[in-house]
Amino acid sequence: MTTIQDVAALAGVSVSSVSNVLNGRTDRLGRETFQRVQDAIRELNYRPNLVARQLKTGYAPLIGLLVPSTANPMFGELAVHVETAARDAQGFRVLLGNTHRDREQESRIFDDLIALGVRGVILASSRTDEGHLEAAIARGLAVVSYDRGGDGDARSHIDHVSPDNMLASRLAVDHLVAHGHRRLALATPDVKTVSRKLKRQGFLQAAQEAGVGRHAQVLEGTTGSGYGDSNLADEGYAMAGRIAAMQARPTGIIAINDMMAMGLMAGLHRAGLAVPRDVSVIGMDNLVMTAYANPPLTTVEMPSAEMARAMVSMVVERLAQPELPAREVLFQPRLVERQSVAAPPPDSASPRPRARPPRKTSA
Amino acid sequence: MTTIQDVAALAGVSVSSVSNVLNGRTDRLGRETFQRVQDAIRELNYRPNLVARQLKTGYAPLIGLLVPSTANPMFGELAVHVETAARDAQGFRVLLGNTHRDREQESRIFDDLIALGVRGVILASSRTDEGHLEAAIARGLAVVSYDRGGDGDARSHIDHVSPDNMLASRLAVDHLVAHGHRRLALATPDVKTVSRKLKRQGFLQAAQEAGVGRHAQVLEGTTGSGYGDSNLADEGYAMAGRIAAMQARPTGIIAINDMMAMGLMAGLHRAGLAVPRDVSVIGMDNLVMTAYANPPLTTVEMPSAEMARAMVSMVVERLAQPELPAREVLFQPRLVERQSVAAPPPDSASPRPRARPPRKTSA
Repeated sequence: MTTIQDVAALAGVSVSSVSNVLNGRTDRLGRETFQRVQDAIRELNYRPNLVARQLKTGYAPLIGLLVPSTANPMFGELAVHVETAARDAQGFRVLLGNTHRDREQESRIFDDLIALGVRGVILASSRTDEGHLEAAIARGLAVVSYDRGGDGDARSHIDHVSPDNMLASRLAVDHLVAHGHRRLALATPDVKTVSRKLKRQGFLQAAQEAGVGRHAQVLEGTTGSGYGDSNLADEGYAMAGRIAAMQARPTGIIAINDMMAMGLMAGLHRAGLAVPRDVSVIGMDNLVMTAYANPPLTTVEMPSAEMARAMVSMVVERLAQPELPAREVLFQPRLVERQSVAAPPPDSASPRPRARPPRKTSA
Repeated sequence: MTTIQDVAALAGVSVSSVSNVLNGRTDRLGRETFQRVQDAIRELNYRPNLVARQLKTGYAPLIGLLVPSTANPMFGELAVHVETAARDAQGFRVLLGNTHRDREQESRIFDDLIALGVRGVILASSRTDEGHLEAAIARGLAVVSYDRGGDGDARSHIDHVSPDNMLASRLAVDHLVAHGHRRLALATPDVKTVSRKLKRQGFLQAAQEAGVGRHAQVLEGTTGSGYGDSNLADEGYAMAGRIAAMQARPTGIIAINDMMAMGLMAGLHRAGLAVPRDVSVIGMDNLVMTAYANPPLTTVEMPSAEMARAMVSMVVERLAQPELPAREVLFQPRLVERQSVAAPPPDSASPRPRARPPRKTSA
């Protein structure tokens, strides 16, 4: 490895002159000296050591990104957006940790990040319990939390960036109701994350307001989110079997995310039910793949590129000013209409419609 | 941040005593001293600084992982496997770089890795040109290259881990031929990577040997792999339009990977062709999603967890022994049979069959 001493020797100047060039303190350097140092840096292909920078600033130019699993394309895509934003805006690189939603894994990653000199973390993983998170912050981490909502406590020093999950459910409910559905269901794995709780709350509330609250049901999966979300399609597939066997089946199903929606559609097809002829399905996330599903999946898009940029900005700001009050930003989701929603089948019992259009008596 | 000095002060011992405990040099320490240091470490929640370890070993306990884009679930899954292997086997963490198959991006990531003290790299990204790669190795990186095949030059100091891409194509060809297909096509983006070249070569060779070489065609995409592989489904979708318009359509299509296969199936359905009734499709990779496609996709599985473990072992070995001769390991793919392959449609012209079963004359 080329050192700063090598550069100084080749340029025939002192190490502190090279350091001055590297740090932009060029006002007292002669033009010729400056040029010799520049030439030597180029000739030796010298890169200033970021470890040295780290010892000076107290942290490495790295952002830790903790996600359940990049095997869920939702987080694979988020990782691309975070990395692009970190590099473009701030010259930071990304250290990746897949937590599999396991608290022990998260704790161990926090330990390693601190030991590696990483001080900024984007956390897209935690369940609702967060004692270990507070411990990490107490040890000096600047944390931006993704999709967990805030608790309104500005003293927490954790910034929160989320899509508006309640609105996401509302967009899906309203779309199904507009197509004539009255028996709705929300399909979800265990409801142990903040975002899933909010999606459930938004679902029940929107169904109530649309006058179909009595027939709205939350179908909760049995297997949890064990393998870091890569098994969510399995969960949807298994749930489709339960749905197909129901006496009074829901006609419109909202899946808590696209992975689950894809599994759900496969399971419904397997059970002999066609989407959308027999059952309509809406996902959430707008994964690349959903446009190529059969039928193409109607879904609620979460603006992950914009959220990634916001998270990177916030974590870098908090690195510089750790005492900033906690901030909370909600991003607006939008419905992407494709072909997995249609009117409910004509023979589906239509329980207690709230209002009927007045009938015209024909002559 | 707690320092080693804090620990020494609380324990009432010297810094070098703490250092001895941390480094396992406990033979000359009294039991009581040892216990006091251990207690102080626990009470202060002290973590030895990995930056210091880095200054000592010359590298950070990090492995750089360069992939085209984790938005392609193939690489999102590979990242999970690499991270798990790195952590479990070696206590390394993973620094992620999405290169978008862009040579400039790769070069810049190499620069940053070196500056950050990272010396071990798993590269799953490069196109065939590799001048910048050799430069990075000359600057001290230990590189294991994924899915690029070796050039047989043991002096290169680059280890290669790949699935047997020629065999992957052969498995797909043989499966289609066994179902009675004679007009085969390989659907691929531009053939600018080593693995795509090998898949093409394997396809043409296997078709030749099966006696259907004259009718085997390679359909190359027009848009390249621009956005780091996340546009491969688009590519497949567009190609389906071309295929549907052909006079003598292939009846069995092998897509170079699952992303492309999913787009291809969507495009064929869009054009009014049913899979597998009108056209059979086989993918490669065995992404989680393909089991939930409609129809579920028959595909060639690449053993990515095993390959990830091998790559991590090899990069750690090379960090310790940079002068090891280059190694090359091929892993065996296997066919995963689902429902996207059937016999060709009866009305499809069957050009020049190599052999017909003898006809029995019925009484």
